[in-house]
Amino acid sequence: MRPENCTLLTDLYELTMGQAYLQAGQNESATFSLFVRRYPRDRGFFISAGLEDVLRYLEALHFDAGDIGYLHRTGIFSADFLGYLQGVRFTGEVWAIPEGRLFFADEPVLEVTAPMIEAQLVETYLINQVHLQSMIATKAARCVHAAQGRAVIDFALRRTQGADAGMKVARSSYLAGCVATSNVLAGKEYGLPVSGTMAHSFVSSFPSELEAFRAFARSFPDRCVLLIDTYDTIRGAHLAVQVAKEMEARGQRLQGVRIDSGDLLALSREVRRILDEAGLGYVLIVGSGGLDEYDLAELSAQGAPFASYGVGTRMGVSADAPWLDMAYKLVHYAGEPIMKLSPGK
Amino acid sequence: MRPENCTLLTDLYELTMGQAYLQAGQNESATFSLFVRRYPRDRGFFISAGLEDVLRYLEALHFDAGDIGYLHRTGIFSADFLGYLQGVRFTGEVWAIPEGRLFFADEPVLEVTAPMIEAQLVETYLINQVHLQSMIATKAARCVHAAQGRAVIDFALRRTQGADAGMKVARSSYLAGCVATSNVLAGKEYGLPVSGTMAHSFVSSFPSELEAFRAFARSFPDRCVLLIDTYDTIRGAHLAVQVAKEMEARGQRLQGVRIDSGDLLALSREVRRILDEAGLGYVLIVGSGGLDEYDLAELSAQGAPFASYGVGTRMGVSADAPWLDMAYKLVHYAGEPIMKLSPGK
Repeated sequence: MRPENCTLLTDLYELTMGQAYLQAGQNESATFSLFVRRYPRDRGFFISAGLEDVLRYLEALHFDAGDIGYLHRTGIFSADFLGYLQGVRFTGEVWAIPEGRLFFADEPVLEVTAPMIEAQLVETYLINQVHLQSMIATKAARCVHAAQGRAVIDFALRRTQGADAGMKVARSSYLAGCVATSNVLAGKEYGLPVSGTMAHSFVSSFPSELEAFRAFARSFPDRCVLLIDTYDTIRGAHLAVQVAKEMEARGQRLQGVRIDSGDLLALSREVRRILDEAGLGYVLIVGSGGLDEYDLAELSAQGAPFASYGVGTRMGVSADAPWLDMAYKLVHYAGEPIMKLSPGK
Repeated sequence: MRPENCTLLTDLYELTMGQAYLQAGQNESATFSLFVRRYPRDRGFFISAGLEDVLRYLEALHFDAGDIGYLHRTGIFSADFLGYLQGVRFTGEVWAIPEGRLFFADEPVLEVTAPMIEAQLVETYLINQVHLQSMIATKAARCVHAAQGRAVIDFALRRTQGADAGMKVARSSYLAGCVATSNVLAGKEYGLPVSGTMAHSFVSSFPSELEAFRAFARSFPDRCVLLIDTYDTIRGAHLAVQVAKEMEARGQRLQGVRIDSGDLLALSREVRRILDEAGLGYVLIVGSGGLDEYDLAELSAQGAPFASYGVGTRMGVSADAPWLDMAYKLVHYAGEPIMKLSPGK
C-alpha cells in the first residue's frame, strides 16, 4: 500500500467533519499534536519512526476522479464539498522528531499545522503509520539492547499484521539497530541487507538430513547456514560438522548453524562444544524460534554462545504491547489554544 | 500493497531453498498444509479469511525484470536459478476452507499442492494474509457475538498495524458480521458500508459545543450522529436534545448520539432517559472508546441501551492475541508422507 494511493485510506469522519467545516466556514489554521498518552506495560520510552511515509503521503495527497466518483455515489457528501476535495492539496507544515530518536509519553512526536480541513483529513493515515512504525522501532530497540551486541535479524514477515506491516517492520527494526531482514521486498525497496537460509521443510523433503545439508552447501558455498534442529539438534550438529569438513576439503567454510527450537541455552552450549572440538571455531550459531527481548536478555545474562538471533513474530507484532494509545489532538485553532476534557482522553 | 506487487514480498529463505531445490533436482510435487498449531488464550475456534487474496496472489505470481535485477545484484543467486525464476508461474492447486467458516487448531485451513519450488516460494505471503485475516475475523466474530444483536462497526483503521491491515481488518470484520467500517478506501475497494460522524476535535474547534452540533446537523440532516462526551456527557446529551428539537422543527430527525468515554453503562442509561423524556425515542445511542468483546459482553449482560458499537483498536490488532501460531508444514513430497519432529513445532 503505497502512500500515493492512500488519500481515501481515511476514517469516514475525517470527510464528514471536512464538509461541516467547509459549510460552517471553519477552515482557519489548526495545529494538531500526535503523541502517545501513556506507556503500555514494560515501556518507558518510544523510538520515533514513520516520518518518511508521512511526508510522502502529505506531498502526494489528492483525490483522483475515481475517489470523487466513489464519494459522490455514497450519497453522503454535498457537491460543494466534493468540488473542494477535487482541488485539495496539503499546504500545511509538519514539525517532527527525526526518525530513530527517543520520545516519551505525552510528548509530541509530530505536529501538523494546516487549514483545519487539511489537518483533520490526514489524521488517520498519520496515526496509522507513526503508530505502527514507532511501536515496532521501540520493540526492536528493546530486542537489540537485550541481545547485548549479538546481531538481531528481523524474521517477522510471515506473521506481521499484513503486507504493509511486513515492510514497515523491516524498515523500523533496521532503524532501531537490527542488522538485516528476511523480507526480500524490503531489501529491494529500502536497500536493507537481507538474510535467510533454510526451513525445516527443506530438510524434511530430502531422503536424509545429511543429503539436505550437502545440497544446500553445494548451492551456497559462501553463505551456508544449516538448520540443525529438524530431527535432533545434537545429531544435526554432528552432521553439520561432517558437511563443514567436506566443505573445508573443497576450500570452503560453513558459515553457521541455526537452532530454532528446544532449550536454546543448553543446546547452544553443547553445539558450540561440538563445533569447537571439531576445530570449527569459525562456525557461528544463530538462534531463533519465538524469541523476544525477554528471552534475549536471559540468553545474554547466561552468556549463551549465539552470534546472532533471528527475531520474528513477537517483535513484528509488538506482541506484549500490540498497540499504543496514540492520539492526534487539536491544540490550537485560529490562534487560540484548545482544551478538551473527556475523562481519560 | 496489492497482491500483484507481492512476489518479492517473501522471506529470503524461500528463494535460497528454491535454488538448492533446483540444483538438487528436487522439484517433485509437494503438499503443504496451513494450520494453527494451538489456540491462544480465550480462543476455541477460528474463522477462515484471506483466501481471496491468496488466490489473486497465486494467479499473479511472477518476477518482473526489476525483481530479477535486484536478486542478481544481491550476489546470492546463480544464473540458472534466476533464469528459472524469470519463467516461474504458480501451476499448482489449492484446497481451502471457504472464507467465513469455522476451523479449529491443528485442522488445515488451506493446502497447496505444487512443484516443490513453487509451493515453498508462496509460503510467506500465504501465511501473512491468512494469519492476519483469520485472526481478525475470529476476533470480530467474538465481538459480534458479544454485542448480542447490537450492530458492531469497525473503527480500527487509525491503529491497525499498517495500511494493508487496515484494509483487511475492514474486510475480515465485515465477513465476521460487522455491519460497516470507518475505512473509506475499504468501502470503495470492497463495496462495504461506511460509517462515521465527528471527532472530539470537531467539537472543541467551535466556539461552543452547541455551535459544533448545529453545524454538523446543518451539513448532515439525514445522518447526524452527535458526539456528546467532549466536555460533559450529560450536558452534551441535553444540547443534543436541543439540536434534535431544532431539527424536528425543520422536518428532520437526529439519528443518534455517540458516547466515547466514561462509564458507558451508567451514561448510556442516563442519556437514554434524557432522550426518551424529551420524546426522542427514535434517537439511537452509539457506544465506542477502547471496546472489545469482554466490554461488549458486560454491556449486553447489563442491558445497556446502545443500538450499536464502534469497535476499534482492540479488535483491529486482536489485542489479547495479536498473533497465531500458524504454520505451513510439508506433509507430502513426491508421493510420500513427511514427518518432522522438532520439539514444540
